Amino acid sequence: MKINGVAYRSIWSVVRDGKKSIAIVDQARLPFEFATAELITCKAVADAITSMRLRGAPLIGVAAAYGVALAMQSDPSDSTLEASYRDLLATRPTAVNLRWALDRVRALLAPASPIDRAQLAWHEADQIADEDVMLNRAIGAHGARLIAEMHARTGRAVNVLTHCNTGWIATVDYGTALSAIYQAHDAGSPVHVWVDETRPRNQGLLTAWELAAHGVPHTLIVDNAGGHLMQHGRVDLVMVGADRVTARGDVCNKIGTYLKALAARDCGVPFYAAVPSPTIDWAIDDALNGIPIEDRSGAEVRIVRGRAGNTVHEVEIVGAETPVANPAFDVTPAHLVTGIITERGVAPPARLAALFPERSAA
Amino acid sequence: MKINGVAYRSIWSVVRDGKKSIAIVDQARLPFEFATAELITCKAVADAITSMRLRGAPLIGVAAAYGVALAMQSDPSDSTLEASYRDLLATRPTAVNLRWALDRVRALLAPASPIDRAQLAWHEADQIADEDVMLNRAIGAHGARLIAEMHARTGRAVNVLTHCNTGWIATVDYGTALSAIYQAHDAGSPVHVWVDETRPRNQGLLTAWELAAHGVPHTLIVDNAGGHLMQHGRVDLVMVGADRVTARGDVCNKIGTYLKALAARDCGVPFYAAVPSPTIDWAIDDALNGIPIEDRSGAEVRIVRGRAGNTVHEVEIVGAETPVANPAFDVTPAHLVTGIITERGVAPPARLAALFPERSAA
Repeated sequence: MKINGVAYRSIWSVVRDGKKSIAIVDQARLPFEFATAELITCKAVADAITSMRLRGAPLIGVAAAYGVALAMQSDPSDSTLEASYRDLLATRPTAVNLRWALDRVRALLAPASPIDRAQLAWHEADQIADEDVMLNRAIGAHGARLIAEMHARTGRAVNVLTHCNTGWIATVDYGTALSAIYQAHDAGSPVHVWVDETRPRNQGLLTAWELAAHGVPHTLIVDNAGGHLMQHGRVDLVMVGADRVTARGDVCNKIGTYLKALAARDCGVPFYAAVPSPTIDWAIDDALNGIPIEDRSGAEVRIVRGRAGNTVHEVEIVGAETPVANPAFDVTPAHLVTGIITERGVAPPARLAALFPERSAA
Repeated sequence: MKINGVAYRSIWSVVRDGKKSIAIVDQARLPFEFATAELITCKAVADAITSMRLRGAPLIGVAAAYGVALAMQSDPSDSTLEASYRDLLATRPTAVNLRWALDRVRALLAPASPIDRAQLAWHEADQIADEDVMLNRAIGAHGARLIAEMHARTGRAVNVLTHCNTGWIATVDYGTALSAIYQAHDAGSPVHVWVDETRPRNQGLLTAWELAAHGVPHTLIVDNAGGHLMQHGRVDLVMVGADRVTARGDVCNKIGTYLKALAARDCGVPFYAAVPSPTIDWAIDDALNGIPIEDRSGAEVRIVRGRAGNTVHEVEIVGAETPVANPAFDVTPAHLVTGIITERGVAPPARLAALFPERSAA
């Protein structure tokens, strides 16, 4: 996507003095500042994922692949391969893309000669990044059709409610749910987005920043407001992303998604999750008890960043003496999900597996 | 309730040089500072309600009664009586206590001689304040029994989730839902409270401050988290207050309450609203379309207050260029409500009217 007329991906490789590294859009500084950062070690990649300078399920999968490539560049031994796999996998327990990308790279590198590993890893990571862009473009085309159909039905601008950030910065490019919104907007479907703030990390501010940059009409709301808007017919579609979707169509996504899905069901609003197939976990049986839900630091709840004058400051809304819990994801059961938007099309949960016969058989 | 060993109400009258005024706990400065403020005119009371230095449905009813008394003290004419009624009523459209208290005071003053009005108004406002304390004590006793019964059933600490602030500062004393929690705690029922942050105004911070002062175990969570906690059996009861309850038991309360009620129903968690009878609107038929929902300033969403070092600062999480919507309340339909806790006992929505035969007949 373009920022001030310059086309960016959210992650790309850089060659300096014959050595490769990766560059990223530093999401911890958004939306207050647009800055890029260079990561030159596997540990730096792992730290960027943990601290959410790199975030978004599809993007952290790609970043992890690059992390292995950086590790192999400095030491292509079996033990370093295993250590990089383990350290990167431990950064975020909930998103399945991380494991998917790491498994793919390790399966390629493990049988290879150490001398070839760095090059193979870079190539594979680039490949995963390029595939992510293609998947998201396809997801967006399918999702945009849902918006166009809704517009054809109502004859007015389609109000889409979204939670968290599923935009181009959460992927390599285009985004997942936002890819659908961008493509609908670009194709001339009038669309307006209700942007959930998404406490505690306020990823809604990233969404608002992306939508403003792309010229898509939007309104920021607190996470509490969506149910009321749905009760009053002011939401036509809910579209979110996911960190993990099961073969049955249970959707594990940013904390609070479940509440919006309940309201959507109660108010007759269709609820969609847009995901590339690497986000689908074909193995897991019981989403509610089987998907590990990351508990993040209470500091994310306590501390809020914002602008005061021309500088960015942090304020503490409560002190450390107040106990805080910060579960980062929840599970929306499949029966609340209208459809999963994938690169192969849109399927209700019960027909998701049929879209991927080769995977669901495995 | 006591603050540093001193017993406070949230509002009280003060006599200085033979003139009366009212003193309040300034809620806009909480939880960062505990300060009181003196209000000497009706307009000052109206402004304090609008800016939420005075907030909480029961408290703003009482404050409005005092506002009329202040107006009568300076000019007991018919036109000032009408103007004070109108100006105070316009401060907040959603809570019905405001109208209830103003109607009561006006009905008393209108037929009285102007010379008697000030004294009558002060007396009536004091009366309404004292009644509020008694109502809340009774509500708390009924609500505490629900907590004790849940403890008897589970044999462990009862986890109550609450939204917004329903504590002593939201009333004259004791609170509504928090009155139940205080009384349960004081009676030895082990209780732990999940405190919703309650964006955009973060009244959950007031709740956490009150609970800490009273020694009640609690954990602050973002508004997105409650559904996940309920899915995992970590919430035994939801207890909230309300700004208006209809005769059918629809509950209009702080934005986001509806989402918690949906999750409670989905997870089999009982959902209660604790209200004194002046919060019940016996006249309204269609809560969803009949109760005016206040749209408040987008600045409440944009600007967050917190501490930085030893001082309180405001930061802007998004600039004025980002469109913001800020509906302040929503309606939870009666079918999601397990019971209404009133001063006369606990009733499921269908039996609420039977608790107040004299009102529901009117």
